[in-house]
Amino acid sequence: MQTYTSIRELRGRIGEWRKANPEGTVGFVPTMGFLHEGHASLIERARAENGLTVVSVFVNPLQFGPNEDFERYPRDPERDASVCERAGADLLFAPEVREMYPKKAVTRVLVEELTDRLCGASRPGHFDGVGTVVSKLFHIVQPDRAYFGLKDAQQVAVIERMTEDLNLPVGIVPCPTVREPDGLALSSRNVYLTAEQREQAVVLSRALGKAGEWLSEPELGASELRGRIIAYIERAPLAVIDYVEVLTYPDLQPPDGLTLSSGNGQGGRIIVALAVKFGGTRLIDNRIFG
Amino acid sequence: MQTYTSIRELRGRIGEWRKANPEGTVGFVPTMGFLHEGHASLIERARAENGLTVVSVFVNPLQFGPNEDFERYPRDPERDASVCERAGADLLFAPEVREMYPKKAVTRVLVEELTDRLCGASRPGHFDGVGTVVSKLFHIVQPDRAYFGLKDAQQVAVIERMTEDLNLPVGIVPCPTVREPDGLALSSRNVYLTAEQREQAVVLSRALGKAGEWLSEPELGASELRGRIIAYIERAPLAVIDYVEVLTYPDLQPPDGLTLSSGNGQGGRIIVALAVKFGGTRLIDNRIFG
Repeated sequence: MQTYTSIRELRGRIGEWRKANPEGTVGFVPTMGFLHEGHASLIERARAENGLTVVSVFVNPLQFGPNEDFERYPRDPERDASVCERAGADLLFAPEVREMYPKKAVTRVLVEELTDRLCGASRPGHFDGVGTVVSKLFHIVQPDRAYFGLKDAQQVAVIERMTEDLNLPVGIVPCPTVREPDGLALSSRNVYLTAEQREQAVVLSRALGKAGEWLSEPELGASELRGRIIAYIERAPLAVIDYVEVLTYPDLQPPDGLTLSSGNGQGGRIIVALAVKFGGTRLIDNRIFG
Repeated sequence: MQTYTSIRELRGRIGEWRKANPEGTVGFVPTMGFLHEGHASLIERARAENGLTVVSVFVNPLQFGPNEDFERYPRDPERDASVCERAGADLLFAPEVREMYPKKAVTRVLVEELTDRLCGASRPGHFDGVGTVVSKLFHIVQPDRAYFGLKDAQQVAVIERMTEDLNLPVGIVPCPTVREPDGLALSSRNVYLTAEQREQAVVLSRALGKAGEWLSEPELGASELRGRIIAYIERAPLAVIDYVEVLTYPDLQPPDGLTLSSGNGQGGRIIVALAVKFGGTRLIDNRIFG
């Protein structure tokens, strides 16, 4: 595996590979580093489906709010490199902030509507930063396919819509969330949790499991489901709910009608999405049904 | 020359050409049609510098305000095709609105700061529409170089900055304004002018010529220059000034200091930009000095 910090050099290397492999495809896994088995699963999938696998590690300041954890976001470049190598990455792109933003960025890529709820409502400007940096990375790497974890389901929906709206020549591949044995979704932010918070954090995935059971009730409505999930999460004393939402997926709209069961003629998919704080650490999780 | 209305088919054709010409470059001229000799000069230059020349003709609804001339913007697809062919285009892309915007476009590409003055101030939202459609067209055509006329100097500055900020892998080639024998800058909107308006419209290019003379005065300041240009244009009875601006180029900021002469240590370029209405027709012109 080769590591690049320069856009020009990375592009040169990918360009050479393309010339030598005119039928080959490039798979791309953009990350913010501090890689865990969830990221490794994306890299392995990219590796299996493409001739060249590129991973980026870049903690993007543009997608953090002024009171968020940009400065203290966990970083471990050496371990990241070894996770990438072990998972089968060919090229690692790890630029400095000044390489990605050499001057004040006055251009932004905005995805409206999809971003005014869930994490977009809790973190104003977050998805503008995501859309902008992902479109920059797509232009730098020019992949055939890009791999994103469904733990950030709204991010996947936003990037799919941006790609479609802007005719980006990239296939977006959503990949399943990887979990700890007890169900907790892997996240770089899990390292912030104390032992007691870590124990109670399992309430997110358990609540989603219960939501799956409740959804089989034929007359269940979205607000009733939401209420039951909130009550379930509140049984964890350290849990402070940021949001619990039941929406259509990938459009992220309130579901039509009163009931969610498959018999109500909606046919589409439903996402149950949670954001819960434990102390200063905000965890998200979701499940998509139907 | 082949004409395409389908994104998929155009991409397929360009992809085939790329495979057959691995060292070749693609030149791209995005237009809104009703092509004149200014457009032809862009196509000829793209032809001279690239192996494949692609022209798009698309009147982009996103860049017109609610009270602007989208519906009545002049269109002549047959003549456009013959201008393209004569100038040496290989592929003409002329999509319908529903091909470019099959669903409500919720993604927008914004370039801030550069767009809050000149035409951006007179036409709110205009450059959001330009940035969005140009990035879509770049993703569809994936050219090596794109050619833009400097009559729309602010548009060139905005597209250059967007390309730089988003790392778009496209070289932007600004090309000189083509003029009528009396100096009037060619524009698709010139057809709206009555004979009397047409005669007086020459005041724009003449005012820019006078500005060039005045700029040789060592103590001239921006506001004095602006005042002289306004007085000069107002001698044309049918002219109604929208704006007269003297700014740095390409940053479009007010020049530092009191004087504009080359002796004042600024070193950078200065743009004198005009927008003047004749009846319902708004004409723009500019010159870049230094």
